[in-house]
Amino acid sequence: MSAQTATWLDGAPTSALPLPDRGLDFGDGLFETLLLCRGAPLYADIHLRRLQRGLQALAFPECLATARQQLEVAANVARDRGWPWAVLRLTVSRGPGPRGYTPPESSQPRIIITATELDRDCSQMSGPASLSLATLRWPLQPALAGLKHLNRLEQVLAAAERRDRGTDEAIMLDQQGQLVSVIAGNLFLVQGKRVLTPALDTCGIAGTRRQLVLEQWAARLGLQAQASTLGLQDLASADEVFFSNSLLGLRPVASFGEHQWHSHPTCQALFDLYRDELP
Amino acid sequence: MSAQTATWLDGAPTSALPLPDRGLDFGDGLFETLLLCRGAPLYADIHLRRLQRGLQALAFPECLATARQQLEVAANVARDRGWPWAVLRLTVSRGPGPRGYTPPESSQPRIIITATELDRDCSQMSGPASLSLATLRWPLQPALAGLKHLNRLEQVLAAAERRDRGTDEAIMLDQQGQLVSVIAGNLFLVQGKRVLTPALDTCGIAGTRRQLVLEQWAARLGLQAQASTLGLQDLASADEVFFSNSLLGLRPVASFGEHQWHSHPTCQALFDLYRDELP
Repeated sequence: MSAQTATWLDGAPTSALPLPDRGLDFGDGLFETLLLCRGAPLYADIHLRRLQRGLQALAFPECLATARQQLEVAANVARDRGWPWAVLRLTVSRGPGPRGYTPPESSQPRIIITATELDRDCSQMSGPASLSLATLRWPLQPALAGLKHLNRLEQVLAAAERRDRGTDEAIMLDQQGQLVSVIAGNLFLVQGKRVLTPALDTCGIAGTRRQLVLEQWAARLGLQAQASTLGLQDLASADEVFFSNSLLGLRPVASFGEHQWHSHPTCQALFDLYRDELP
Repeated sequence: MSAQTATWLDGAPTSALPLPDRGLDFGDGLFETLLLCRGAPLYADIHLRRLQRGLQALAFPECLATARQQLEVAANVARDRGWPWAVLRLTVSRGPGPRGYTPPESSQPRIIITATELDRDCSQMSGPASLSLATLRWPLQPALAGLKHLNRLEQVLAAAERRDRGTDEAIMLDQQGQLVSVIAGNLFLVQGKRVLTPALDTCGIAGTRRQLVLEQWAARLGLQAQASTLGLQDLASADEVFFSNSLLGLRPVASFGEHQWHSHPTCQALFDLYRDELP
């Protein structure tokens, strides 16, 4: 197993994180999860723009160019090892600091990258997924909404519940009971020629594939994509349901409780566009 | 500086955390901050009971006895080094695991302890503090309310703002605008013979010193202490304001914006009880 993964800290191979580190202490940091196709990171620019928004929101010193550079080093290793598909997690922590919540005035962020070979062919769309409903709801936090930061306990608890229920994924609501996402991805409902996804102004993570559906892919199929306030009743009445994340691309939904969806033409057509963009 | 701090991982001295670790990846863990007086951890049982509640809420395997044992090892080192006062941070991470949010079915938590000498005499009450109002509000999350988990970005961002404003501490509200806490501690308002502190059913951290005020110290002074729903208007009209945390014990508040409090007899009397309990 150890040959199938590799980790770097600030560009150097490593197996450990120096302590103290504010990423561990407070979740004071951000991350991105990139899919590598034969060593090429997919949509790296979109990932890095989201990372940059997060770095600004957390008032980190400028480190995007370094992150990009180290991402390339890791991607090259994945390519040299001949991994057809791999996942690369890029974590930026605020690094060391004195005790207490207050961040140091001049912090020295750390960049931790882990590349792991995947044993599935990511150019094939995954089979339709079963969904449950997560008991735990997203908290309302406009200051952090959309960002992929390291405070992810809600997803961890929802994922443990999902595993116990035996479904492939789970719907997460906000505190008002509106749809937000699945645990590890963004949610889409198809209504006729419209593709709707929950608005993420107050919570949630604004995924890279969500952005591609909204800004590029849906329009190419003549569909109107938009972010909206959506509830469970919209899910129940949707013609088709699917979700997105960086590893799966898009995955159709087969069932949510008693609701079933038997055909997934929109998801399949969007996935075909995605597949055609693979290097 | 290096002689004044020491770190252990699972009971062995260390300077680094093996990767991957879910504490870093997702904030999947808990922590406690204990004050050591001549090597004796204060109110360790109360800290460990809160830790236990957190371990249960996150469905960690049983590891409280190990945490207690390692805490004693670290405390003994602080005592042997002759540190009059020290702070001990005890972090429990869910440890390593495969990629993704879903926790492993049988995780192996890691216990990371850092002991740091303090250069102040913690038996003396700190001078009255200035408060500002944090822009960022606590998110509503009943599933995690009261727990001291590793997802602390809200405190980090509020603390950076407080530093820039130049106050000693800052009031944090919930999303409805009710009082919750200060950034690093619990808040108390004195109204005549009553000591009121915000209820923490939907957010906040239930501090050890808060519990002592509510359950023991206030009653010993003939005061009625209770947790309530409180707003900024209650703060403005309070006879006295103070806050608590494990390092300061209790600290009086001098000002919040235009409001000023010139005497602090209740906070002083409660602090005297606390000081009398020091070993």
